[in-house]
Amino acid sequence: MRAGGRTGALDRAAAVCILALCCGCLHVIALKSQLFTRLGGSSYSTETPISYETFYFDQQIDHFGFLEEGTFKQRYLVGDKLWKQPAGPILFYTGNEGDITWFCNNTGFMWEIAEELGAMLVFAEHRYYGESLPFGQDSYSDSKHLNYLTSEQALADFAVLIQNLKSTLPGAQRSPVIAVGGSYGGMLSAWFRMKYPNIVVGALASSAPIWQFPGMVPCGDFYKIVTQDFAESGYNCDANIRKSWKAINNVSSTAAGLQWLSEEFSLCKPLKNTIDVIAFKNWLQETWVNLAMVDYPYEANFLQPLPRWPIQVVCKYLGFDSAVSDYQLLHGVSQAAKVYYNYTGDSSCLNTSQTATGSLGYLGWTYQACTEMVMPMCTDGVQDMFEPGEWNFQAFSDECNAIFGVRPRADWAGIVYGGKDIASHSNIIFSNGGLDPWSAGGVTGNITNSLVSIMIPDGAHHLDLRYSNDHDPPSVRAARALEVKYFQEWIKQAKKAPRTASTP
Amino acid sequence: MRAGGRTGALDRAAAVCILALCCGCLHVIALKSQLFTRLGGSSYSTETPISYETFYFDQQIDHFGFLEEGTFKQRYLVGDKLWKQPAGPILFYTGNEGDITWFCNNTGFMWEIAEELGAMLVFAEHRYYGESLPFGQDSYSDSKHLNYLTSEQALADFAVLIQNLKSTLPGAQRSPVIAVGGSYGGMLSAWFRMKYPNIVVGALASSAPIWQFPGMVPCGDFYKIVTQDFAESGYNCDANIRKSWKAINNVSSTAAGLQWLSEEFSLCKPLKNTIDVIAFKNWLQETWVNLAMVDYPYEANFLQPLPRWPIQVVCKYLGFDSAVSDYQLLHGVSQAAKVYYNYTGDSSCLNTSQTATGSLGYLGWTYQACTEMVMPMCTDGVQDMFEPGEWNFQAFSDECNAIFGVRPRADWAGIVYGGKDIASHSNIIFSNGGLDPWSAGGVTGNITNSLVSIMIPDGAHHLDLRYSNDHDPPSVRAARALEVKYFQEWIKQAKKAPRTASTP
Repeated sequence: MRAGGRTGALDRAAAVCILALCCGCLHVIALKSQLFTRLGGSSYSTETPISYETFYFDQQIDHFGFLEEGTFKQRYLVGDKLWKQPAGPILFYTGNEGDITWFCNNTGFMWEIAEELGAMLVFAEHRYYGESLPFGQDSYSDSKHLNYLTSEQALADFAVLIQNLKSTLPGAQRSPVIAVGGSYGGMLSAWFRMKYPNIVVGALASSAPIWQFPGMVPCGDFYKIVTQDFAESGYNCDANIRKSWKAINNVSSTAAGLQWLSEEFSLCKPLKNTIDVIAFKNWLQETWVNLAMVDYPYEANFLQPLPRWPIQVVCKYLGFDSAVSDYQLLHGVSQAAKVYYNYTGDSSCLNTSQTATGSLGYLGWTYQACTEMVMPMCTDGVQDMFEPGEWNFQAFSDECNAIFGVRPRADWAGIVYGGKDIASHSNIIFSNGGLDPWSAGGVTGNITNSLVSIMIPDGAHHLDLRYSNDHDPPSVRAARALEVKYFQEWIKQAKKAPRTASTP
Repeated sequence: MRAGGRTGALDRAAAVCILALCCGCLHVIALKSQLFTRLGGSSYSTETPISYETFYFDQQIDHFGFLEEGTFKQRYLVGDKLWKQPAGPILFYTGNEGDITWFCNNTGFMWEIAEELGAMLVFAEHRYYGESLPFGQDSYSDSKHLNYLTSEQALADFAVLIQNLKSTLPGAQRSPVIAVGGSYGGMLSAWFRMKYPNIVVGALASSAPIWQFPGMVPCGDFYKIVTQDFAESGYNCDANIRKSWKAINNVSSTAAGLQWLSEEFSLCKPLKNTIDVIAFKNWLQETWVNLAMVDYPYEANFLQPLPRWPIQVVCKYLGFDSAVSDYQLLHGVSQAAKVYYNYTGDSSCLNTSQTATGSLGYLGWTYQACTEMVMPMCTDGVQDMFEPGEWNFQAFSDECNAIFGVRPRADWAGIVYGGKDIASHSNIIFSNGGLDPWSAGGVTGNITNSLVSIMIPDGAHHLDLRYSNDHDPPSVRAARALEVKYFQEWIKQAKKAPRTASTP
């Protein structure tokens, strides 16, 4: 039992970092990756210039109660240079857990198709992230101020914002709106279409693990996919990572071993004790997960600056045969980790407490995971390359209670968003990458004619939403083309079925 | 301008009663009618015996935030004598603004079809009504305690309750659930299917004015239908009611006139001044509205014990030609009013502050009208038989703020429940009575093959949900038969498309 037990003795102040130790919470680490901006890569073939204006909308703090009448400034970005008004479509990015300018810069797909569709682009920031803080600097001060950080409130923000745009922007009144999002943003875009089909005519949910909730998919599938990515990227790569945990345990059992490890990995802060070693192993586990998410076919900088097909590069250091010493093995692991953390050669040391994001976004997502976004994860060390770790809801709940004074509701997301019973909805594309561990919780088969799955076997996390690139595999080119076809179909449908006239 | 202006000088304590004065709030009066129990009538032909057990479910006070972790006991009634388990369907009444036992007793239709469908019946009480009080006796103490009284919370209650029943009741796991409701309960049943199609396979929304919201239907249509009912029930009936307001103004302009009026109407509390006269006219207006709602073809007791086709009886006293004195006219009005208030002959005097319901339900609905349920109403005295009264949202909002410290959000219901853009949903029957003023805000034409309208031209307010009766017009018999056919179709669909298997 991994969750809870190891952390019980730790003081509350450290709990936020510790939460990442529990196996079931690793999704926190993984999803937060999207907070990073794309800093560009060397091999982009086309880059439609990004040009937007920033606006702020007075948004209700509480859509579901009337006592709190306050409003906050929700940030949104509008790119309308290629919009064909009147009635040209609006592509609406349903912002996820981070600064909306980062998502805007990382969703080249929308910028590239704007001209073809004559579309206006809107990127709406998710409340409690970026600049859209309901209570300013106090937004994260306690559970009272955090109480309005839910996906339902975020969806209501999007709905109210769109309704307002359509009624105030000249030429937008009859514009069909399509929701687009990736990862948690993709979950939001799918749910947005499910809950507000009056507001959006369809949704593209890219790499959206809408089924990564209790009882919907096996908790171990996520880590199995991570493992597969490594198994397929180099000889014995997964096997050697599987062995590395024991090797770390062996080596770290002496003071000299701890020192060796710290030096071998060029750690900024040397390992001192068992707790440090646990954190170190979790940091490594997170590293492999992140690599699986960003295993892109070209040099890119999403979570870190990385070479093309980074797992193949990593695995070059992990091709040992079975007869290898712990030290030799861990030397390979250290070289591999440095591909991820020091591809540019600029890092003087590696920081094991480093997270892939600013603390605000991380804390926000941790709160969301501790309330609605309960995503069971587990490992067994057999079908995956990680140390065994059960999913322990009670321990997870206790951690959440200790940190935030709230408890997660395991069944709520399934009830409110339909779980596996979503066949009555329509016009949603679920795109998933075969390399992406989040596809484990995604919709990877057609549900109906209009709830369709697009698989990108060579794709990592929402590759389809990124700028096109010369190195893109045919599968993602085909996916993007098909997505545009669906968009055009939905737009046509919307024009055929005009709004019922309203009466003033 | 009727709303606000007349009430501005009144003290805050009286505001709840005064709210009914504003033309736009008359729906409050009308909808609350459902709080009354059916006490039986002389001509019921068949009465399936009602037999249920009462249960209480620990329901989350706040489904949309995690700070308030408290629960309350939600009452629900279960009638399962005729249930064919396993997998027999569940008919689920989405309780509206009142004691659920009253709705249970007034929804004979469900009891009559239970055997044919092999159905379990569940009647779930709406939070803040009956015994389902989130904070016990404090539930109505202030706006803080009232903050969880919303339709979204109520729908979430229903969803969580059903999920729980299906997972705990042996034989219910694969039972398709159909939502049934009348009036506000019908709005809830329609919205329930729209928002939780994973929980209910279809919904019967009887007399559900889901379009009685800003910008959706003309604000005067409600009162036009009331007027039509009177116009068609007796010679000059509507014309004489239209004249009666001026007659009341004339007669009440002197102290002697006030006394005459008080005696003529056998008022328990004599009229003293202009404010009393305004209240008196509003009470009369409410009387005519209520009569339109319960213009049933048989002797019944819904709002009051009444003869069959009560408006025809009322109109017998209002058939004057134009040449009639104010006093003669008002004598007729008084006789007419007594049909409604004293059909049994048991009333010693008439109480103009009498409301048709207990104060709890009334206060709750007033709060709902003051928050989400913003239903514009207006009169012009030309196309309807009432004194002209505009819809004045600002005045209404100010009243609400004075009473509860909250302000209504005019656009919210339209955004969250789709307004007129609901065509992408499925499996909802909207039944409406041609005599029912609430049909003005109802769906009275088919939207798609599976969002269908059933009109009952001779029907008043949700006649189809009542026990069958020898005097039922053929239209309501046909409506009920068609409703059952749809239910059977939905049940068949659900069996054909079994739940996707879940993984533990």
